[in-house]
Amino acid sequence: MKTARLEAFSDGVFAIAITLLIIEIKVPEDTSHLLTKLGELWPSYLGFVISFLVIGLIWANHHAMFDHIVTADRTLLFLNTVLLMLVVFIPFSAGVLAAAFRTGESERTSVVLYGVVLVAGGIPFNAIWEYARRNHRLLGPSITPAEAKRIARRFYLGPVLYGVGTLLGALVPALGIAVFALLIPYYWLPPAMHWLRKPQPAQPAE
Amino acid sequence: MKTARLEAFSDGVFAIAITLLIIEIKVPEDTSHLLTKLGELWPSYLGFVISFLVIGLIWANHHAMFDHIVTADRTLLFLNTVLLMLVVFIPFSAGVLAAAFRTGESERTSVVLYGVVLVAGGIPFNAIWEYARRNHRLLGPSITPAEAKRIARRFYLGPVLYGVGTLLGALVPALGIAVFALLIPYYWLPPAMHWLRKPQPAQPAE
Amino acid sequence: MKTARLEAFSDGVFAIAITLLIIEIKVPEDTSHLLTKLGELWPSYLGFVISFLVIGLIWANHHAMFDHIVTADRTLLFLNTVLLMLVVFIPFSAGVLAAAFRTGESERTSVVLYGVVLVAGGIPFNAIWEYARRNHRLLGPSITPAEAKRIARRFYLGPVLYGVGTLLGALVPALGIAVFALLIPYYWLPPAMHWLRKPQPAQPAE
Amino acid sequence: MKTARLEAFSDGVFAIAITLLIIEIKVPEDTSHLLTKLGELWPSYLGFVISFLVIGLIWANHHAMFDHIVTADRTLLFLNTVLLMLVVFIPFSAGVLAAAFRTGESERTSVVLYGVVLVAGGIPFNAIWEYARRNHRLLGPSITPAEAKRIARRFYLGPVLYGVGTLLGALVPALGIAVFALLIPYYWLPPAMHWLRKPQPAQPAE
Repeated sequence: MKTARLEAFSDGVFAIAITLLIIEIKVPEDTSHLLTKLGELWPSYLGFVISFLVIGLIWANHHAMFDHIVTADRTLLFLNTVLLMLVVFIPFSAGVLAAAFRTGESERTSVVLYGVVLVAGGIPFNAIWEYARRNHRLLGPSITPAEAKRIARRFYLGPVLYGVGTLLGALVPALGIAVFALLIPYYWLPPAMHWLRKPQPAQPAE
Repeated sequence: MKTARLEAFSDGVFAIAITLLIIEIKVPEDTSHLLTKLGELWPSYLGFVISFLVIGLIWANHHAMFDHIVTADRTLLFLNTVLLMLVVFIPFSAGVLAAAFRTGESERTSVVLYGVVLVAGGIPFNAIWEYARRNHRLLGPSITPAEAKRIARRFYLGPVLYGVGTLLGALVPALGIAVFALLIPYYWLPPAMHWLRKPQPAQPAE
Repeated sequence: MKTARLEAFSDGVFAIAITLLIIEIKVPEDTSHLLTKLGELWPSYLGFVISFLVIGLIWANHHAMFDHIVTADRTLLFLNTVLLMLVVFIPFSAGVLAAAFRTGESERTSVVLYGVVLVAGGIPFNAIWEYARRNHRLLGPSITPAEAKRIARRFYLGPVLYGVGTLLGALVPALGIAVFALLIPYYWLPPAMHWLRKPQPAQPAE
Repeated sequence: MKTARLEAFSDGVFAIAITLLIIEIKVPEDTSHLLTKLGELWPSYLGFVISFLVIGLIWANHHAMFDHIVTADRTLLFLNTVLLMLVVFIPFSAGVLAAAFRTGESERTSVVLYGVVLVAGGIPFNAIWEYARRNHRLLGPSITPAEAKRIARRFYLGPVLYGVGTLLGALVPALGIAVFALLIPYYWLPPAMHWLRKPQPAQPAE
C-alpha cells in the first residue's frame, strides 16, 4: 500500500485542526469598547499562536518522517489515526487554556491538560517511527538504519520536553506555557540558522 | 474518468468530518472547578474517540477499496456522495450520543440513532464495491474477481455487526456502545498482529 | 499554469462546504423527549440531504469540466473563486431554509434565497466553460469544439431549471423545494441508467 | 525536500480559512421578518465577499510563487506556517469587521484590525519570496533572477497598499473598506484584460 493517500488524508486533518484554532476565538457580538474587548482576548491569541506553531511543527515532522516511509500497512494507518486524534484534540485543549487564563481560574489544570495532550501525541508519533524503522520494515532507500535511529532519538526528545513543561506548568502555570512557547523556536531555529549560513541553490536537502 | 479527484475529494470530506468531531466538545466558558467540568464531559470524549476510530476505519476501508477501483463513472460518484453524506452525519449523531449520556436522558434513542447512521453508511459502502466489481466493471488488474468477492463478504459483515450493536443498544444502551467500541479493535488488530509477526521490509503489501 | 493546484484547492473548498452543512444542524442540549426533538429537525435533514447532493453534483460537474481544461490563467482563477464563493454560501442558505421551515415563518423568502444562490452559482460556472472553450483557449485535445458546445448547452440548463424552481417557490414554497429535490435525480439518474445498461470494464469514460 | 506536501497542506489551510468565512454569518434562529433580518446582515455579506476574494488572491499569488519554488527547507516551512497563521486569522478579523458595522460601534477599530492583519500577512509572504530567491536558492530554472526580482517588487506593493487602506480606514472607516475592496479588481483585472485580448489556445502561461 502506498503512502500517498495516507499523507493526503493526514495533511487534510492537520490543515483543518490548525485552522479550527481560530474558531475558539469568539468574535465579540457587542462591539462597544472594541479595543478593550479585543485586548482582553490576549490569552486566546497566545493559545492560538503557540498551538498553530506546535501543530505546524508536528506536521513538518510528520512530513519529514513520511519522506522516508514508502510503504503503509494497517498498523501504520492505526497508529497514524491515533496521532491525528490527539492533534485534533489540541484546538479543544487550547480553547480550555485560553478560557482559564481569561477568567483567571483553574489555570494550572488547563496548562496540565494542554501539556498532557502534547505528551500523549508524542506516543503514537514515536510509535510510527519505531514501527516503520524496525528491520527497516517500511522505510525506503533514502535513509540508512543508523540515520533512522538518530532521527528517532531527536523525536523522543519531543514528549520528554513537553513533559518537563507540563510538570513545571503544574507548579507555575505561566512557566509551563513559557516552556511550550520556547520549544517552538528551539525546533524551528537551528535548521534556519544552518540554511541562512549555507545557501545551496536548487538542490533538494534533508 | 480517473479516480484521483474522487479520492482527493473523499479524503477531504473524511478529514473534515473526523476533525469536526472535536467541535461537538464545547470548551467550558466558566473555568471554576475546571477539573470537575472536564471530567463531566467524559461522554463527549468517549463519543469522540469511538467516532474518530470508526471514521478512520471507514476511511481506511475506502482507501483499500479504491486501491483496486481504477475507473469512475457518474453512478460511482453518486454512490460515493451518498456514503460521504452518511459519514458527515456521524459528528451529529456522536454529538447527540454525548448529550444524552451527559444529561442521562434518552440514552437509548441516542444509541439507536448512532447505530442506524453506521448501518445506513454500510449500504452505499457495499453498493460501491458491488457496483465496481460487477463484471469486474471498474476494477483494475490488481485484484481477481474471486478476491473481490472475498473482500465483499468482509465488507458485508460491517453493517451486520453494527446492526447487532444497534439492537443490543436498543435494549441496554451501554451495551450498544460497548459493541461499537469493540468492533474497532476487531477490525484494526488482526492485520496488526499479522504484521507484527512477519515484517516485510520495503515491499508494498495488501 | 497547470490546473492541478486549482483542482486541489477547489476540491478542498467543495469538501469543506459540503461538510459544513452538518454544522447547521444543532445537537439538542436538553435530550429529554429526544425522539420528538430529533423529529422536529426534519427541515434541517431535508436541507442537509438536498444541499449535500446539490454540492456533490456541482463538484461532479466541476470535475467533468476540468477533465478537459488543461491550462489555467488568472481569469480562470478569478471565475473559479467566484464560483467557490457561491458554493460556500450554500450552507448558509440551507441553514436559513431549515430555520424557516422549522418555525413556519418566511418560508417563501427562504426558498427564494436558496434558489437565488443556486442560480447565481450557475453564472460563474457557465462563465468558466465559455471562457475556457472560446477559441478552444484552455481546452486540451480530449474534447472537440463541437462536443464542448454540446456540454455548454447542458450546463446552461442548470441555472434555468433552478430559476424555474425559484419562481415556483416564490408562489408555493414547498413546490420550489420539490423542484430542487427533483433536479438531483434528473442529473444523476440518466448516466446511471446508461452505465447500468452498458458495463464497460476497465476503460476510462466521460 | 520537495514542495508537493507543503503545497497540499497550504491549499488545505487556504481552503478551510476561505470556507470558515461563512461560519461568521449566523443563521437567524427566529425567521419572522426574515427579509429584513437578512438585509441587516449586509456588513457580514460585504466582509464575506471582500475576505473571500482577498484570501483567493493570496492563494493565487502563493500558487504563482510556488510554481517557481522547487525546493523546501525548514526555514521555508516556518515562514509558510507564519503566513498561514495570518491567513487563518482573516475569518476572525472579518467577523469583527462585520459585527462593528452591524452595531455601528467601533467601526474604526475593526477596520484597522482588518487592515493590520492583511499588512502583517504581507510580511511572511514577501519573506518567503526573498528567502527563496536569495542566490536563486530554492528557485528552479523556470524563472530568471531578474524576473524573480521583478515579481518581488510587485509582491512588495501588496502590504504597502493595504497599509494605505488601513491608514485611510483609521480616518474614515468606510474609506478603508473601499480601498480593500478596490485592491481586489486592481489585482484580478489587468491579467484578465490581457487574456481577453490575446487568447492563446492550449499553451501554459504565467
